[in-house]
Amino acid sequence: MESVMNCADGQQASSMANLWSNKQESSRTQKAKGGFVLVHAGAGYHSESKAKEYKHVCKKACQRAVDQLKAGALAVEAVAAALVELEDSPFTNAGMGSNLNLSGEIECDASIMDGKSLHFGAVGAISGIKNPVSVANRLLKEGQKGKLSAGRIPPCFLVGRGAHDWAVCHGIPSCPSEKMATKFSLSAYKRNKRKMELAERMDTGHSQTKKRRQSNENENGSGCLDTVGAVVVDLEGNVAAAVSSGGLAMKHPGRIGQAAHYGCGCWAENARNVNSYSTAVSTSGCGEHLIRTMLARECSAAMQSEDAHQALLEAMQNKFISSPFLASEDRVLGGVIVLRCCTCLEAQSSQNIQGKLVEFLWSHTTESMCVGYMSVQDSKAKTHISRLPSGTVPGQSLAIEGGVCRLMGVTE
Amino acid sequence: MESVMNCADGQQASSMANLWSNKQESSRTQKAKGGFVLVHAGAGYHSESKAKEYKHVCKKACQRAVDQLKAGALAVEAVAAALVELEDSPFTNAGMGSNLNLSGEIECDASIMDGKSLHFGAVGAISGIKNPVSVANRLLKEGQKGKLSAGRIPPCFLVGRGAHDWAVCHGIPSCPSEKMATKFSLSAYKRNKRKMELAERMDTGHSQTKKRRQSNENENGSGCLDTVGAVVVDLEGNVAAAVSSGGLAMKHPGRIGQAAHYGCGCWAENARNVNSYSTAVSTSGCGEHLIRTMLARECSAAMQSEDAHQALLEAMQNKFISSPFLASEDRVLGGVIVLRCCTCLEAQSSQNIQGKLVEFLWSHTTESMCVGYMSVQDSKAKTHISRLPSGTVPGQSLAIEGGVCRLMGVTE
Repeated sequence: MESVMNCADGQQASSMANLWSNKQESSRTQKAKGGFVLVHAGAGYHSESKAKEYKHVCKKACQRAVDQLKAGALAVEAVAAALVELEDSPFTNAGMGSNLNLSGEIECDASIMDGKSLHFGAVGAISGIKNPVSVANRLLKEGQKGKLSAGRIPPCFLVGRGAHDWAVCHGIPSCPSEKMATKFSLSAYKRNKRKMELAERMDTGHSQTKKRRQSNENENGSGCLDTVGAVVVDLEGNVAAAVSSGGLAMKHPGRIGQAAHYGCGCWAENARNVNSYSTAVSTSGCGEHLIRTMLARECSAAMQSEDAHQALLEAMQNKFISSPFLASEDRVLGGVIVLRCCTCLEAQSSQNIQGKLVEFLWSHTTESMCVGYMSVQDSKAKTHISRLPSGTVPGQSLAIEGGVCRLMGVTE
Repeated sequence: MESVMNCADGQQASSMANLWSNKQESSRTQKAKGGFVLVHAGAGYHSESKAKEYKHVCKKACQRAVDQLKAGALAVEAVAAALVELEDSPFTNAGMGSNLNLSGEIECDASIMDGKSLHFGAVGAISGIKNPVSVANRLLKEGQKGKLSAGRIPPCFLVGRGAHDWAVCHGIPSCPSEKMATKFSLSAYKRNKRKMELAERMDTGHSQTKKRRQSNENENGSGCLDTVGAVVVDLEGNVAAAVSSGGLAMKHPGRIGQAAHYGCGCWAENARNVNSYSTAVSTSGCGEHLIRTMLARECSAAMQSEDAHQALLEAMQNKFISSPFLASEDRVLGGVIVLRCCTCLEAQSSQNIQGKLVEFLWSHTTESMCVGYMSVQDSKAKTHISRLPSGTVPGQSLAIEGGVCRLMGVTE
């Protein structure tokens, strides 16, 4: 197992715990009015040729969240805004430009969780909606309003045609599927279809078991799995997380990945008392691996340990790469972004000043992961394409990086 | 909070822990060749007038599982067989006779988990399939075979039309929807629709918020929520769990409940070492409450504590009724069946003899829950309709009961 640890400003750091315990957050200490956002444009493989586009969309998504926070929005609204930007990019596998399924259709998964109310909304295998996260967010909001007529409990998870119709009924416009496909997604579909047909022809004559084992090493294993997501904390310490995905290329119609799955795609939980952290997590990668390990929730629970870096390292190693739930998998592919937040003791001298210490990390077993982060006081987002150390094996090794940010501002 | 504790043979017992620690399992100690099954026909409200039918279907489901175990099947096959029987009954809200949704259609959720391989299969909002659990089971099996052509990862969760088509492609026959509706489910739909329309007319003139709050006390709160399920242990100590549901009456099309949701509807996990238990859980009740609390997995984790009864009591109280995830709910409605199993030390003197101690429990916050249980050596299943103590409030109180069974048999 390999791990890489950089602090946010690019300098090598021995441990985030040291930064934390010694209160040496100088590299990102600042006075902020609103909050902090960390986004990802997916764990998978990001070519150098498209690095600029991936970073650009992360930057825009951070800016959208920060605009919301500056306008006084809570974390859950800011995270939804970031996701809309990520979905709208034709370069990400979410919303516009999503992977096509076996039938050549786009079916999206998305979910959102509000750490304050602990409410959750999700849509799965939804077609014809430009921003699936907006439907998930609306489900969350409707769930917060209490029961429907005749005592019916509002749904938190809708799929397929029903999800689409619910969205339209709630004022979210339908979008023709052909507008959501891009030149790139259509050509990828044709390429994948040819490869599949070729692989199936080559396997003719072998037994089903043999055929399956032989195909394990194919290109899809560490391919482009660009589920997108974001985590946000606002100045009150409310956290929120969201995730959105077009799913695996050539997936079976109706397949649901982790992005729609409670505890697997995203998790957000405000601190329950002064001794605990608010935590938010968003995942990316192979949906089935992330579902069966419930990685978002596992990472959130791990973040209550003292040393955030060590806790995430252990969670990724023990609850993901070496998870007994994935014992039969040769390569375990995924990535997470994580933040945790607690109140800064130093800032409590004045009643009107509230300070928050935010620790943020990303980790992945895929070849690369593109992230961006920004606080309200930053003039622009920082972006980074994290890569596995050269010579390490995707699905068996991991990279882990992160930073620390102190938020201070006047609360109202 | 109220709790009731009876041992399986109907006699009052102070604590299951006493039975366990003192090795006084005489009430159900027997020599069995194969295993043990516990089924439920739902947590909800079971009228006295239909008690006979509910018990009868539980009996038949137990018998089906036991027939499988006697034939040498593993736990996962036995649990699937029990579920098919439960789904085929017109009296349960699963498969045949499922609740109709808002559009008057049947959409089913089901899932199954194998504690040995830790694989999982689920279908959601599936129409036109007589036994949804069979599709979930087939997804589990296909997942165990490894990757598909061109390195594609097999799905573990399919929904809607895609799930239906996948099932048909895999040899599971389609069933016309009209054959799955019963006289009872159709008349319940008409009744519910009238009630909904009446409730909405009565609310005219009130604000949306007020309308929602007022309708909280409606009949649906503790209505018939008969998701069915089963847990099985075989003589090797392999556990499996499954669950199947037609979902809430008048649910929105595309709504997914806990029965399709990993960690929420069912959970099964073989013992990882000699000091831990194999555990299996199946839940029933309000899907949204069971999703947001991940009740199946929480109860499974709790079962590693020494005292099974106390552990389940605390889990139902702290992780469900008083869960921070359901803080805004006035009534938290659900039920679980749980089993745990460990190797009996007494039986290890001979290499050919393997003994297992099985502890099984059920608990619910709904008015009633119908259960049945049987070991391979039993001539017929025992059934029971558990009810909340009179005067206690559904959704705020709980009942908990259970028993102990010792399995001994020759392994091959």
